[in-house]
Amino acid sequence: LFVCICVCVWVVGLGLQLRLNSLKPMRRYSMYGRYTQELGVYAKEEAARLRESGQRRSVSRTLDLLEYDKGRCAKCRICTVRCQKFLISRVGEDWIFLILLGLLMALVSWVMDFCIAICLQAQKWMYGGLDSNVFLQYLAWVTYPVVLITFSAGFTQILAPQAVGSGIPEMKTILRGVVLKEYLTFKTFVAKVIGLTCALGSGMPLGKEGPFVHIASLCAALLSKFMSLFGGIYENESRNIEMLAAACAVGVGCCFAAPIGGVLFSIEVTSTFFAVRNYWRGFFAATFSAFIFRVLAVWNRDEETITALFKTSFRLDFPFDLQELPAFAVIGIANGFGGALFVYLNRLIVQFMRKQKAINRFLMKKRLLYPALVTLLISTLTFPPGFGQFMAGKLTQKESLVTLLDNRTWAKQGIAEEFDYIGHSEAWKHPQVNVFVTLVLFIVMKFWMSALATTIPVPCGAFMPVFVIGAAFGRLVGESMAAWFPDGIHTDGTIYPIVPGGYAVVGAAALSGAVTHTVSTAVIVFELTGQISHILPVMIAVILANAVAQSLQPSLYDSIIRIKKLPYLPELGWGHHEKYNIRVEDIMVRDVRYITLNCSYRDLHNVLLTGHLKTLALVESTESMILLGSIERAQLQALLSLQLGRPRRLAYIRERAVEDKKRLSVVSNDSSENSSHRASQEVRFQVRGHSGQRCKKCFQPFKAHYFQSHRKKCLQNVTAEFCMSSKITEWEEKQLDEQVNFNNCKIDPAPFQLVERTSLHKTHTIFSLLGLDHAFVTSIGRLIGVVSLKELRKAIEGSVTVKGAKVRPPLASFRDSGTSSSENEATELHKLWDRHKSMPLPREHTPSESDEKSQ
Amino acid sequence: LFVCICVCVWVVGLGLQLRLNSLKPMRRYSMYGRYTQELGVYAKEEAARLRESGQRRSVSRTLDLLEYDKGRCAKCRICTVRCQKFLISRVGEDWIFLILLGLLMALVSWVMDFCIAICLQAQKWMYGGLDSNVFLQYLAWVTYPVVLITFSAGFTQILAPQAVGSGIPEMKTILRGVVLKEYLTFKTFVAKVIGLTCALGSGMPLGKEGPFVHIASLCAALLSKFMSLFGGIYENESRNIEMLAAACAVGVGCCFAAPIGGVLFSIEVTSTFFAVRNYWRGFFAATFSAFIFRVLAVWNRDEETITALFKTSFRLDFPFDLQELPAFAVIGIANGFGGALFVYLNRLIVQFMRKQKAINRFLMKKRLLYPALVTLLISTLTFPPGFGQFMAGKLTQKESLVTLLDNRTWAKQGIAEEFDYIGHSEAWKHPQVNVFVTLVLFIVMKFWMSALATTIPVPCGAFMPVFVIGAAFGRLVGESMAAWFPDGIHTDGTIYPIVPGGYAVVGAAALSGAVTHTVSTAVIVFELTGQISHILPVMIAVILANAVAQSLQPSLYDSIIRIKKLPYLPELGWGHHEKYNIRVEDIMVRDVRYITLNCSYRDLHNVLLTGHLKTLALVESTESMILLGSIERAQLQALLSLQLGRPRRLAYIRERAVEDKKRLSVVSNDSSENSSHRASQEVRFQVRGHSGQRCKKCFQPFKAHYFQSHRKKCLQNVTAEFCMSSKITEWEEKQLDEQVNFNNCKIDPAPFQLVERTSLHKTHTIFSLLGLDHAFVTSIGRLIGVVSLKELRKAIEGSVTVKGAKVRPPLASFRDSGTSSSENEATELHKLWDRHKSMPLPREHTPSESDEKSQ
Repeated sequence: LFVCICVCVWVVGLGLQLRLNSLKPMRRYSMYGRYTQELGVYAKEEAARLRESGQRRSVSRTLDLLEYDKGRCAKCRICTVRCQKFLISRVGEDWIFLILLGLLMALVSWVMDFCIAICLQAQKWMYGGLDSNVFLQYLAWVTYPVVLITFSAGFTQILAPQAVGSGIPEMKTILRGVVLKEYLTFKTFVAKVIGLTCALGSGMPLGKEGPFVHIASLCAALLSKFMSLFGGIYENESRNIEMLAAACAVGVGCCFAAPIGGVLFSIEVTSTFFAVRNYWRGFFAATFSAFIFRVLAVWNRDEETITALFKTSFRLDFPFDLQELPAFAVIGIANGFGGALFVYLNRLIVQFMRKQKAINRFLMKKRLLYPALVTLLISTLTFPPGFGQFMAGKLTQKESLVTLLDNRTWAKQGIAEEFDYIGHSEAWKHPQVNVFVTLVLFIVMKFWMSALATTIPVPCGAFMPVFVIGAAFGRLVGESMAAWFPDGIHTDGTIYPIVPGGYAVVGAAALSGAVTHTVSTAVIVFELTGQISHILPVMIAVILANAVAQSLQPSLYDSIIRIKKLPYLPELGWGHHEKYNIRVEDIMVRDVRYITLNCSYRDLHNVLLTGHLKTLALVESTESMILLGSIERAQLQALLSLQLGRPRRLAYIRERAVEDKKRLSVVSNDSSENSSHRASQEVRFQVRGHSGQRCKKCFQPFKAHYFQSHRKKCLQNVTAEFCMSSKITEWEEKQLDEQVNFNNCKIDPAPFQLVERTSLHKTHTIFSLLGLDHAFVTSIGRLIGVVSLKELRKAIEGSVTVKGAKVRPPLASFRDSGTSSSENEATELHKLWDRHKSMPLPREHTPSESDEKSQ
Repeated sequence: LFVCICVCVWVVGLGLQLRLNSLKPMRRYSMYGRYTQELGVYAKEEAARLRESGQRRSVSRTLDLLEYDKGRCAKCRICTVRCQKFLISRVGEDWIFLILLGLLMALVSWVMDFCIAICLQAQKWMYGGLDSNVFLQYLAWVTYPVVLITFSAGFTQILAPQAVGSGIPEMKTILRGVVLKEYLTFKTFVAKVIGLTCALGSGMPLGKEGPFVHIASLCAALLSKFMSLFGGIYENESRNIEMLAAACAVGVGCCFAAPIGGVLFSIEVTSTFFAVRNYWRGFFAATFSAFIFRVLAVWNRDEETITALFKTSFRLDFPFDLQELPAFAVIGIANGFGGALFVYLNRLIVQFMRKQKAINRFLMKKRLLYPALVTLLISTLTFPPGFGQFMAGKLTQKESLVTLLDNRTWAKQGIAEEFDYIGHSEAWKHPQVNVFVTLVLFIVMKFWMSALATTIPVPCGAFMPVFVIGAAFGRLVGESMAAWFPDGIHTDGTIYPIVPGGYAVVGAAALSGAVTHTVSTAVIVFELTGQISHILPVMIAVILANAVAQSLQPSLYDSIIRIKKLPYLPELGWGHHEKYNIRVEDIMVRDVRYITLNCSYRDLHNVLLTGHLKTLALVESTESMILLGSIERAQLQALLSLQLGRPRRLAYIRERAVEDKKRLSVVSNDSSENSSHRASQEVRFQVRGHSGQRCKKCFQPFKAHYFQSHRKKCLQNVTAEFCMSSKITEWEEKQLDEQVNFNNCKIDPAPFQLVERTSLHKTHTIFSLLGLDHAFVTSIGRLIGVVSLKELRKAIEGSVTVKGAKVRPPLASFRDSGTSSSENEATELHKLWDRHKSMPLPREHTPSESDEKSQ
């Protein structure tokens, strides 16, 4: 263990090197539309802040030193302080963050696995202890998961309903740049971890990969929040999004101890465009995490050394014969159909539950009934002495997988000695029933059970159940092959019997690949089993499965995104050339909220109340509408609260007080009137707040300031209050009429602009490449509209239905008249020109003059 | 074999499914700045063309049918024709292309391997046959590679000098969007294939991975050219670039039979931003290619079944002990330094050869001398009876690798029986010298030899030699560990001896990762050896090696890009915050070539002669400078040649002729005057052509037309010629003065625009994300400048020198005065506003009015 700690320290020490190529260049990817201010400015401020805090720290340090100098080991202390300083200055480094994240996730993963194992053991123990009475046994078998799942559902529901489900769709949306704040809170983290542990501990066919991606992202978000206490670099939003991308890789990596597969899977599942320079972060964090995860297992004496999670031991010299490849291809194709069916079934169940209003109303009332019922059904069917005996019901998911990947053959091999089912494999044997029947039953039952179970509102994924089903299907084909060719297919003398375990590996990769639409399940499979000898069959099967599944259904995650109606930009349909005929001007919102350079605070106030975009356009004037830049909403709120805020208010009051003292010595008014006035004030604010719901929060500091100063006044001078408050209102009105001073405001001088004739296709590409959430549309510098993700989504979805059928895009009719022909483009340009001519242009146009000049 | 063909057919048949999700959505990535016209228009034209050709084909088909109907098996023929028609309609599918590419590359790879093996065998045979005389043996040993390398260098030099080197840097540049046409020609393909075969056949420490990437890309480009005979879809440039990306993956994939590693390696090496949807193409093609490549080996009876290229057989149950990890980490770190040193050494040699003018001049004269000398030196040193005996000189690269990855231990293990060096391993044993000394000598000698050999101007890569050196270093560490802990480190009873082969695997991955700055060498190693049991050590070592190497040196490919001065956009430096203070307005070219909407053909002509950008800006007028769109240079050339082209010219001449006939019956002039006039015409054109060198070509059709018509006239009516030609010049001048009709011209109505205040940082990101090669800079709709890759590169390189030292960016001084503070931004905006105020704006600005409106 010492040596292993040694390595950790080394890794940490050499991670220092990593910072050089990691810290800064990464930050620029996926920045647009999200970054809060110019990074240059940001960096300077950051430097200033660090300097300042450094000074502060050094002051406190010298104090410390003075105190300690009298002590004995002063040198030692100085050294410690220096180390501490060094450490704090390093806290902002990427690799520190990644290592902490990896460590944390490995621990979480390991602890969760441990708890889940205990839960499962407890169930087995209860079931085993009650073997005298079948009914009691049944009760124990059924009650235990029902209680756990119900608890999990209830707990999640109460603490954070966002924790329900896999979380990959949400992460995909967040990484796309849409802010789903409530999905990355501490509450969600707790709900997800505890909910998932209980859900998996119940033994239902649920997975942990998806939730782990979410948990890792939660970890990253929380860690980043925590680290921001030390250094400001953690407040950079774009950096955090990159860290989330790395966290997704960590999630898969430490769940399966599969760093490479984890990175690839997370890229395939969550990204559209991927910055290659971001690649190493995922690798670094995932490798570290997987390493710690497996080291913990060694440390706990579960394993002798670091090995794969589901280690297989197929023969190396002759893994498979070339002539077995058609069978592998069959597995791939069949699993492609199976994967599509799974996604369809899953969606069907969710939609059925939603559409059936009677059921729905009933279930909404008793939210925990649905999980309990589903669990009851599934656990009843798997009850080992009951139907479960025909489908290896008593095995947990992990045990099933281990037995399925076994390198021995189950079916009888000619006259050779009968295979003795040892260990868990025993569960697959039934005295009356053939092993093929057991396998078929297992596949069919588990298939619908998994599709059903993943609709339960608990934190759960579908990857693992699908993986097991795939393995079972592969095993079935493998066993059939083994029964068909008892001596193997190879004809050149040596007998190489067929290895059904290899088929199971292929099947697992193919089905999970088909459901998630990824190719990287192949890599995950290699890392899970620790053997790569079946690489070509696995790759062929995965590619075939993907080809079939992708042409039939969306991936499970995309399906959930559509069901949950998450704000995700859909892909452009295939071969919809009509798309190119929609232009930005057709879909943009023409009623843009903007502020002018010489607007008053009242305008600002109104705009903030009515708009909803994160950034507002700054135009030169209402007439010219020339776009000068964009300002963050928060900046404007700050401006407003600065103008109406406490310091100015207090200054005003003090000023007034001095003036008034001379004139006033009036009796105090009755407090009832005072309070009623306050109430009316409050109502006024609430009404305002209501009309622009999202703005409510932003006015809180303003309100708070108002009432704080109010309260102070109460204490100071109750008598002057009534007079004061009316004057304050007056003052407020006056303040609101003042012209805004943009000097203290960060303005982005180059917001993203599109011209009105940009095609939908181009807009889509730009939005997805740059991760924009809105762009201004300008026509010769004039702001004429704004396009946000919403409009874009509508425009795209208007023409692509879920099932891929073609529907005419809403605006194609305007375009089809012939715009796309080149002649008309020129004609339109001429029209445009004429339009400009008729408008008062900056300088009057004289063709002859221009001709001369251009010569 | 039948079954395997079966699978092929299946794969093909099911690839049909793939087309659905492959064909169209891919095409939109990396389109900007390169696409020739709106895709919508393109698609329509394409459809029209297909329809037309379809009709033509059906006509010929009916003819065929009529002919064949009289024959016996008419039905059969009809069926064939139908199949043919179906196949032709499918030719445009992506998957067909990918399969063809994979097949072709697998064949090329296999044939090349075969030839190389024969070459190497021939050398061995010669060397073995002459063992009676050491001098003769030496002659044979040395002459053979010298002849091969000299032939390879000469052949490449004569046929296509572009084929020299690895080709990955060039592919990186091409995939970035820069057109390097001469790198993708058939000549280059032939030169590369034959040159590489000879170079590798010589036994020099050269690799084939890099050239294979280039060869695959060449294959893709040529195949795409060939396929464009069938369907127009292959003329789409952006599609071809995507295919090139897939081809890079195929190159690595079929070189090492490593599809996953190939895809990842090619992504890491060639891309900056990667479209995830493009991912499956690489996987599909690389898998197919690797499959065929290995099937060919089985078919050739080299292998019994499909296995890894350098199959290892380490024990599975206990691959390594946790306490061995520090040794793996040491390998990683040391290889990181080694990798950086290799890149440095390689660059040093190239730069030394260039700087030494005397040597340089001499070598330039005798181009083949340098390769010959280097080869002589290296082969002399490896001569087995000479120095070669101390460094296993008689082994080829492949044999060395096989022996290094052997799972037996070479060093004596305590009292255990001495290891008997069998097969090739024998070469590592020397009666007087310890195996450690042999290994150290091997590493040191091969290190500089490889660095030197890769500078020879033949097609060659450095991956394989580096891989072997890494493996040797790993072996060295492994053997040391084995000697140090003869009974293994594990303390729990069972003895697990250390496996030095595992260390060799780790070392190979780490060194090659360090040199290329990639993590995916880990995956390549797993696929090459067929074992993944060492995943964690490999990952740790690769990450550490990358961390060290990346902080010291650029990758080998980036180094070559810099040496060759390829037009590649460099990465922004790390932590150069000054960058953010450079704005587009500082770097843009203000003297933009543009055309106005009402310009004359003469203007067009002048602009075409002076400009060099691929697209030209179309502005409304010289005064307003309002950007309306952009037009391709080719389009304008077409316009011009249409106006002055043959049909109009002939029409004019005919018209004139009719007129003139009545008046003219003059004697023919002397031909000398006529020819002198022609010469003067020619001179005039050449002078024009000279002033705008690049335009020379574009005027060829114009000139050709002119002289064609000229010649025709000569034949028709020599008498009228003099009069005619002067009139033609007159006519020409008149034509040039006409206003351009843009109706037949494709105009991109939404070219990419930046505002002048966009930061360098943002510009860089947009350029690299969208793959632009230029962008127009506008200020409130007015075109004020243009930024191309060149300017951007200059601006970035002005502040980052090759060695990473910081130099102040050229324009930072203007900015440092305080622009970056937020206050100044607002001030500047006010200035901007004032400036606009002073200019005649579209509508006169009245502050009070705007205030009212915005309320």
